[in-house]
Amino acid sequence: MAVYKISDDISLYRYGKPYDTEAVVVRELEKAGDEPLKYLQEIEGKGVNLTYTMDRDDIIFGLGENMGGINKRGREYISFCTDDYEHTEGKRSLYGAHTFFIVDGRDTFGVFIDYPGKFKIDAGFTHRDILEIEIPTGDVDIYIIEGEDKNQIVKNFRELVGRSYIPPKWGFGYQQCRWSYLNAGEVEQVVDAMRERGIPCDTVYLDIDYMVDFKDFTVDEKKFPKFPQFVERMRERGIRLIPIIDAGVKIEAGYDVYDEGEEKGYFCTTNEGDTFVGAVWPGRCAFPDFLNPDTRRWWGNLYTRLTDVGIEGFWNDMNEPALFYTPDHLEEVIEEVKSSQGENLDIYSFFKFKDRVVELSNREEDYKKFWHRDKDGRRINHHEVHNLYGYNMTRAASEGFARNRSEERTLLFSRASSIGAHRYGGIWTGDNKSWWSHILLNIQQMPGLSMCGFLYSGGDTGGFGDHADAELVTRWTQFSIFTPLLRNHAGGTRPQEPYSFDDDSAEYMKGAIELRYAMIPYLYSEFMKAVREDRGYMMPLAFEYDDSRSRGVEDQLLCGESLMLTPVYTQNARGRYIYLPEDMLCWRGRDPRNREIHRLKKGEHYLNIAIDEVPFFIRRDRMMVMGKPLNYVEEEVIRELNVVVNLESKAVYDFYDDDGKTTNEADYSLMRFTVRRKGEEVTAKVEQVAGETQVVVVNFEIYAGEDQVVKRKVYL
Amino acid sequence: MAVYKISDDISLYRYGKPYDTEAVVVRELEKAGDEPLKYLQEIEGKGVNLTYTMDRDDIIFGLGENMGGINKRGREYISFCTDDYEHTEGKRSLYGAHTFFIVDGRDTFGVFIDYPGKFKIDAGFTHRDILEIEIPTGDVDIYIIEGEDKNQIVKNFRELVGRSYIPPKWGFGYQQCRWSYLNAGEVEQVVDAMRERGIPCDTVYLDIDYMVDFKDFTVDEKKFPKFPQFVERMRERGIRLIPIIDAGVKIEAGYDVYDEGEEKGYFCTTNEGDTFVGAVWPGRCAFPDFLNPDTRRWWGNLYTRLTDVGIEGFWNDMNEPALFYTPDHLEEVIEEVKSSQGENLDIYSFFKFKDRVVELSNREEDYKKFWHRDKDGRRINHHEVHNLYGYNMTRAASEGFARNRSEERTLLFSRASSIGAHRYGGIWTGDNKSWWSHILLNIQQMPGLSMCGFLYSGGDTGGFGDHADAELVTRWTQFSIFTPLLRNHAGGTRPQEPYSFDDDSAEYMKGAIELRYAMIPYLYSEFMKAVREDRGYMMPLAFEYDDSRSRGVEDQLLCGESLMLTPVYTQNARGRYIYLPEDMLCWRGRDPRNREIHRLKKGEHYLNIAIDEVPFFIRRDRMMVMGKPLNYVEEEVIRELNVVVNLESKAVYDFYDDDGKTTNEADYSLMRFTVRRKGEEVTAKVEQVAGETQVVVVNFEIYAGEDQVVKRKVYL
Repeated sequence: MAVYKISDDISLYRYGKPYDTEAVVVRELEKAGDEPLKYLQEIEGKGVNLTYTMDRDDIIFGLGENMGGINKRGREYISFCTDDYEHTEGKRSLYGAHTFFIVDGRDTFGVFIDYPGKFKIDAGFTHRDILEIEIPTGDVDIYIIEGEDKNQIVKNFRELVGRSYIPPKWGFGYQQCRWSYLNAGEVEQVVDAMRERGIPCDTVYLDIDYMVDFKDFTVDEKKFPKFPQFVERMRERGIRLIPIIDAGVKIEAGYDVYDEGEEKGYFCTTNEGDTFVGAVWPGRCAFPDFLNPDTRRWWGNLYTRLTDVGIEGFWNDMNEPALFYTPDHLEEVIEEVKSSQGENLDIYSFFKFKDRVVELSNREEDYKKFWHRDKDGRRINHHEVHNLYGYNMTRAASEGFARNRSEERTLLFSRASSIGAHRYGGIWTGDNKSWWSHILLNIQQMPGLSMCGFLYSGGDTGGFGDHADAELVTRWTQFSIFTPLLRNHAGGTRPQEPYSFDDDSAEYMKGAIELRYAMIPYLYSEFMKAVREDRGYMMPLAFEYDDSRSRGVEDQLLCGESLMLTPVYTQNARGRYIYLPEDMLCWRGRDPRNREIHRLKKGEHYLNIAIDEVPFFIRRDRMMVMGKPLNYVEEEVIRELNVVVNLESKAVYDFYDDDGKTTNEADYSLMRFTVRRKGEEVTAKVEQVAGETQVVVVNFEIYAGEDQVVKRKVYL
Repeated sequence: MAVYKISDDISLYRYGKPYDTEAVVVRELEKAGDEPLKYLQEIEGKGVNLTYTMDRDDIIFGLGENMGGINKRGREYISFCTDDYEHTEGKRSLYGAHTFFIVDGRDTFGVFIDYPGKFKIDAGFTHRDILEIEIPTGDVDIYIIEGEDKNQIVKNFRELVGRSYIPPKWGFGYQQCRWSYLNAGEVEQVVDAMRERGIPCDTVYLDIDYMVDFKDFTVDEKKFPKFPQFVERMRERGIRLIPIIDAGVKIEAGYDVYDEGEEKGYFCTTNEGDTFVGAVWPGRCAFPDFLNPDTRRWWGNLYTRLTDVGIEGFWNDMNEPALFYTPDHLEEVIEEVKSSQGENLDIYSFFKFKDRVVELSNREEDYKKFWHRDKDGRRINHHEVHNLYGYNMTRAASEGFARNRSEERTLLFSRASSIGAHRYGGIWTGDNKSWWSHILLNIQQMPGLSMCGFLYSGGDTGGFGDHADAELVTRWTQFSIFTPLLRNHAGGTRPQEPYSFDDDSAEYMKGAIELRYAMIPYLYSEFMKAVREDRGYMMPLAFEYDDSRSRGVEDQLLCGESLMLTPVYTQNARGRYIYLPEDMLCWRGRDPRNREIHRLKKGEHYLNIAIDEVPFFIRRDRMMVMGKPLNYVEEEVIRELNVVVNLESKAVYDFYDDDGKTTNEADYSLMRFTVRRKGEEVTAKVEQVAGETQVVVVNFEIYAGEDQVVKRKVYL
């Protein structure tokens, strides 16, 4: 083991010769002395095994997209990007391999395990007090990250792995998806319905059926005739179309993407050097070798086929990669099934028979069947670097956009990911279900994603699988209006668009979505500050309030520096319990116009929250900046801001804004709002700290005491 | 439609010629006039379709063992006994078909749908305000049940369907199960471990592996040599062995149960009259025709093979009936699989291929392939009377016990059931998972089961499938100590006995189980009163406290007439929120000896609840009667009772007890405890209302005011 000092707060403990995942952006390493591993203890075992004995009240934060609570303790996690559409409680892997966490308690420190293959983190599952990390090989980089507090540890980690992806501002609009809107007519119906009801909307998604036979970078002209004109027509209505791109490339002679990939050797290969074949949507496919920079360059350029006709955003899917089956294994299974013919299958033989078929997909053995050639020209088995696949597909796309539309931002998010991918795109949390427990899961996943740098993220609002009812979609929407990615998505189920239920429910969701649009000035400002300052966007209460009560809260979140969220996530609820770690302002309303604000005392509360109501809380000496609802983000420039202030003595808010479109980072506006009380006098001040703003007036609504509401209007 | 008046409160609306399920015990019907259907509206459709428009705040209670909250609104339910081991939120059917519910709000009334086949209850899923009942045929009995309040409606319903099953008192002991303790040695290890640690235990279960090749009513002598002596040896240690009995009978010439069934025509038959063949554990099986009274008599007598060697309890399983496959359908699937050989399976063909195999089990088409001959000699297709199968298997066993060991009670519970089965045995809630959400599901299922008459019931504590951690099993045990059936059960997972984790966790669970044993005087008294008076045992708060806040509580239960329960059901929790609809006494402790009692005010509270702590609440002017922990229920006769009283002005408690063993109902003891305050004076009185008691002293601990604790000792 070699020790490197990355900074005062970060040490790298290098075992063997780890694979270079490029997760970390600090490339120069300074060898330190022979310091022993800090906090963790090495124990005997195959590979590298590390343990830590936790105090009873130690908490584990982080781990990105994973099952479990905000506190990840008491569970086992397998770092292995997995296409699993049943996110039941026992699952140990989802789509993301996010291996940064913080142990918080007796000692408080961060751990980042930079390892591209499968490994296990037992966070007090086998024994409640033992954290154990089991790396199967002897080659791994372990970063121990310290800092004066948890926020600083996150910041240190994020500086290590590089700045998060920035979407266009319209990516903060409401987005509507379904597997699938089958043709242009169905897409237009969605847009018509949203616009007619006045439900704001910025995008409609094209799921796999827009393609010709599920072939990437094709558009089925029968379903979408005159596609460029259709894209344009939608844009005129303020709607961007977001097509899906899958990892697998259909094997079909004459399909130019396949032909070129085959000819140039861009695909993953078998042990023998042939193109590896696995099946996904189109049947047999080849899999681009995203670890190969040439493949990435080629792949990234393919997106121009769609950006050239006006497409400005994509979602990359199936990039764990999902494998329905490999033809040779399918053949084996069919042979076995045949051998069962006429047999009297009992408990043993029947379940073996059934499991062989059930387990056809996403088999580790299949992941061991193919190989990459990486940036160093090295041939490496896929299984060893499995978690880098989705990451490098996203990177290929992102690098392509940087080359081919470098001035403009492109919406991009992925299903599979690992640390590093956060620099290139966002993620969504994959194929969840229309389950109440998955609203809570979504809530509990967000802070881990923030810590790991996946700031542009969100869940399939309303749930992807299983049938939803109106109340579930309403409550979920009321939470998701705070997540950067706000997308309603379902597949194979009852329609789930906001207007698909009853009129009342449509109105409730419309009100929530209008509120979202009104909040974009704040949400975007906080998002961008989180990106630029390597901070979290949605965080556990414990990161600001370190009392034992706050540390245990599993269903409230901080959202940016000013807000605390208390979503409703149970069926038939008329309210919920809320813990306030300090006196806060409670903002509650059916929409941005119909709202009331009242002060609530520090402590425990039961808050009635009607089905049409969204509450949020403004922290002490913090402010909430709002614009107004629009039909779509770019419909109007916001020239008037409404700022609600919870004033104790002095509140300062740095309001970030930019054009939301270009990649020119120099061109932004930073305004500082300062509100203070001296005796009876309340003052509000607006300063332009950097750049220029298009805002002409800021209306302050200042809650300065038990009953005192002061209004101040500042013209610019 | 014909209308019958059953009583002032109950009307029967009979459509067509319903099948006689024998769910209802009132056999004489008095024809009423032409009153129209009350509350429900008939609408057009195939079969009988009824709707009811709910007010926004109407609640639906009941529906027994089903997914969803205590309030069943917002979901869809399919009444069709289903072997499903994945109780995810979207599931519409579990093992029980429990079709009694109460609509509570603008109108408050009960509905019992007496229909043995598949039908749907849409409780505000499709449209949030519409309750819809869809019976596919024109033959159904709809009972509308009124009453002065919800408790009276439950009582009226339960009088209609007959008195609930009574287990032996030792059935209230702690029970330990696993799939499977494979031999006598493994069973003894469990008993040794429990006794050595002093964790009380009354039974150990024998899951399917105790049999020879899964053949019912056999015992594998290789695994359990000298079985009668083994049973006896266990009994001497206070342990009863509880074997499983499955519905399917292995087809094997020379296996006498099969041979006799075949010879006498006791099995279900195909359309052509041959014995129907379906596969379960042993492979191909025949299925006893439990609707045939001759079959039931034969089957009921088979249990004597085990009762004759000292067995006193059974669990009937796989009696939906579960069907892994039917040989002819399996053949079809294999043929189809073969036809896929060499094909390039894509999204459509691959999932079709996979689904054919995944969906081999429990197919409706297979349920349509076999026939019963019922008590009226009528031949009826299984699918039409599917929900009666588990019910009549339990009935067969119960009727056998009534013939063959009529003096003694026999422990009996089932997986599948429908209304009527509650007279013959209890149920457990089937193959749940080691998921936190399934503790809550267990909590939320209990009141529905109480209403439907399944009083002797409980969930697999710790969760059956998936791996559990110590905290989950601890918290689940802390809830289950209040359920009549208290059984820890797991299969195919990490060991889950209380001592299988760390020593601390074993101590926590020991403390909770000791508390259970100390509470048995109260729990048994309340259980027996619920049976005898057709009341609930675990009920929603709304049945006693009808304020709008109490009506919405989904995670607290009333347990008997005195207690309110507030279990912890979330991971890493250090406490939980609690709503008190009135001032109550909070009893909290690690075990029955180490406890404290304090008064808590009406309203909202956050209660710290450490991992080793069980709290419960004693209602105003109610009392809690406790004995003491024992190693097993029959270890000692309880001669000293400790009664904790929450006294406002006058508290009266009727304490029921009996020998817990015999079926002689005349022989019981009823004592009345009266505690009252007049001015400063507090008095406690004990009266023997019926029978005789073995209790010699009652210690009253009376909490009579803010701080006033009065002790009174009454010798008998």
